[in-house]
Amino acid sequence: MPLQNEQWIYHLRPEGRVGPEHYLLRREPFDAAVSANEVAVEVRYVSVDPYMRIQQAVRNTYDVPHPLDIVQRAGTVGQVIFSASAKLTRGDWVLGYGGWQRYYKTHVDELQKLDPQTAPVTTALGVLGMPGRTAWFGLMDAGRPKPGETLVVSGAAGAVGSLVAQFGRRAGCRVIGIAGGERKCEFLLQRLKLHAAIDYRSKSTPELLAAAIQQHVEGVDVYFDNVGGWITDAVIPLIARRARIVICGAISQYDGGLDRPDVGPRFLQHMLFQRATIQGILARDYLHRVDEMKAIVAPWVRNGEIVFEETVLDGFERLPAALNSLFSGENLGKLLVRI
Amino acid sequence: MPLQNEQWIYHLRPEGRVGPEHYLLRREPFDAAVSANEVAVEVRYVSVDPYMRIQQAVRNTYDVPHPLDIVQRAGTVGQVIFSASAKLTRGDWVLGYGGWQRYYKTHVDELQKLDPQTAPVTTALGVLGMPGRTAWFGLMDAGRPKPGETLVVSGAAGAVGSLVAQFGRRAGCRVIGIAGGERKCEFLLQRLKLHAAIDYRSKSTPELLAAAIQQHVEGVDVYFDNVGGWITDAVIPLIARRARIVICGAISQYDGGLDRPDVGPRFLQHMLFQRATIQGILARDYLHRVDEMKAIVAPWVRNGEIVFEETVLDGFERLPAALNSLFSGENLGKLLVRI
Repeated sequence: MPLQNEQWIYHLRPEGRVGPEHYLLRREPFDAAVSANEVAVEVRYVSVDPYMRIQQAVRNTYDVPHPLDIVQRAGTVGQVIFSASAKLTRGDWVLGYGGWQRYYKTHVDELQKLDPQTAPVTTALGVLGMPGRTAWFGLMDAGRPKPGETLVVSGAAGAVGSLVAQFGRRAGCRVIGIAGGERKCEFLLQRLKLHAAIDYRSKSTPELLAAAIQQHVEGVDVYFDNVGGWITDAVIPLIARRARIVICGAISQYDGGLDRPDVGPRFLQHMLFQRATIQGILARDYLHRVDEMKAIVAPWVRNGEIVFEETVLDGFERLPAALNSLFSGENLGKLLVRI
Repeated sequence: MPLQNEQWIYHLRPEGRVGPEHYLLRREPFDAAVSANEVAVEVRYVSVDPYMRIQQAVRNTYDVPHPLDIVQRAGTVGQVIFSASAKLTRGDWVLGYGGWQRYYKTHVDELQKLDPQTAPVTTALGVLGMPGRTAWFGLMDAGRPKPGETLVVSGAAGAVGSLVAQFGRRAGCRVIGIAGGERKCEFLLQRLKLHAAIDYRSKSTPELLAAAIQQHVEGVDVYFDNVGGWITDAVIPLIARRARIVICGAISQYDGGLDRPDVGPRFLQHMLFQRATIQGILARDYLHRVDEMKAIVAPWVRNGEIVFEETVLDGFERLPAALNSLFSGENLGKLLVRI
């Protein structure tokens, strides 16, 4: 009996929040026959990342917009079920870009073999994968933290932010994490051992958030921004001389705010006064340096010297809701769906 | 009979535009007696610069605010009338920070002797002085222009902008100048030989300004910003991959907008998509490299290979109005008051 595939087809561009209504669920037989160098993979873990919502915006993004009526693209970890390559055999764990489907076929070179003995396979989608690369190079290369400096991280309990915060602490910074809700702030203080954690949901204005940050620091040397919007409005006027602002994400704008930008206070004068820099970074720009990151971070993962929290949801049917949940901020650390 | 000094005393902080009502005119005898290493100078040219309005803002600037009830600070070129130093003698031309007054005394080391044979003395306040340093290092160091790239300059007919535009052309860039009014745009095209000049006053919205820029270019590789506000709102969404945005000034905000920031469209997502940088620069950060600039630019000045337009107003009494006139945009190139 042939394998039965299930696929979430991206069918309708969201105007605001994304949800199941923007997808079609397609069921069809999966033809597992592989040609030379082709590999068939059963997906086990699907990565759920904020950048996916950028790709769903109509225009002006770093890619062409995600096409409609194809399988929703996403990073995946799975197991080989058929292989026409000597490089992989049945049962091997692989990292790939399989998308929201149970089975897919691809060229062997599009897959990266994982060793479950070295690190949990899911770390290939997190601390040792795209989010880890983003956090490491975004902070170390663009943020250039120095011992004794103050690092503020927005989205600090998320996949990237939680790593940035820890890398910053290891670099000798005083780290202040901004996150939404008491549970996340407790995570930042108890698990990540940050200097301070600020619950932005308990602050009703940028001024109150700024005042809360100022209770802990004089000025902000490095601001690692995953969020944008009014949280960033609060932080930027607090920058110190020669501050570095790293723009890694603008999650507050992904629910429609990319196509119809909202307004906020102008702030470029602060760049002038403090001779500060803003730099936008993407994980892909550091792909060629990934081994450099792994050489440093993989031992920390093996030795338990770094917290790489995962929130794992079960069920293929929950994928659209999982993507949406990133924006209500329910996940701690890396969000994955196990299927 | 003793010399009679005149001084414009900065007396009242402007809420919006600056004018004579914020100053007191003080007349008093000038005691020209000099102690060891002291020099008395008769001011001949006063520099009128946008940054002076930043210093008049209440807070959050790169300096402590300009104190009230002292002589308005400003760069000056003058002639020595008495000297108690072997380094300078009567009649020597000197660059100093004399402020808005006819006569002042200072330590000889605070003065820089000028050679009128090498270049007009006023160039020490312009192309070979602070504006030249700002333009040269701001563009070459922070903007990093490459041949064939597109450079957009706001405030392109001003003291700094007109130099940036020419330095950019010499670096092989396609240069688009933005300025206010037909006269300035003609200057940009006829005298500075820019690729295009856009009169922002003829555009009523950022969208129309952006469309005018897009008639000439695909994307903006370097944006050198002297102006901020809605002009910058128009340019930023046009940046190309790995664009460099240099923040040199925000003249649109100096009339009160620094103390009560206005709002504009959020744009940090473009930094992310294009992996662009924004860098704020000040002339003072490049003081130690001024000889490097002069070695390159001074020969261009001597050989007439660079346009260094000056607008010279006559009369000590016109100083407050001259400062204000920067913000109605009447000057071409460097604005000076001759007294």
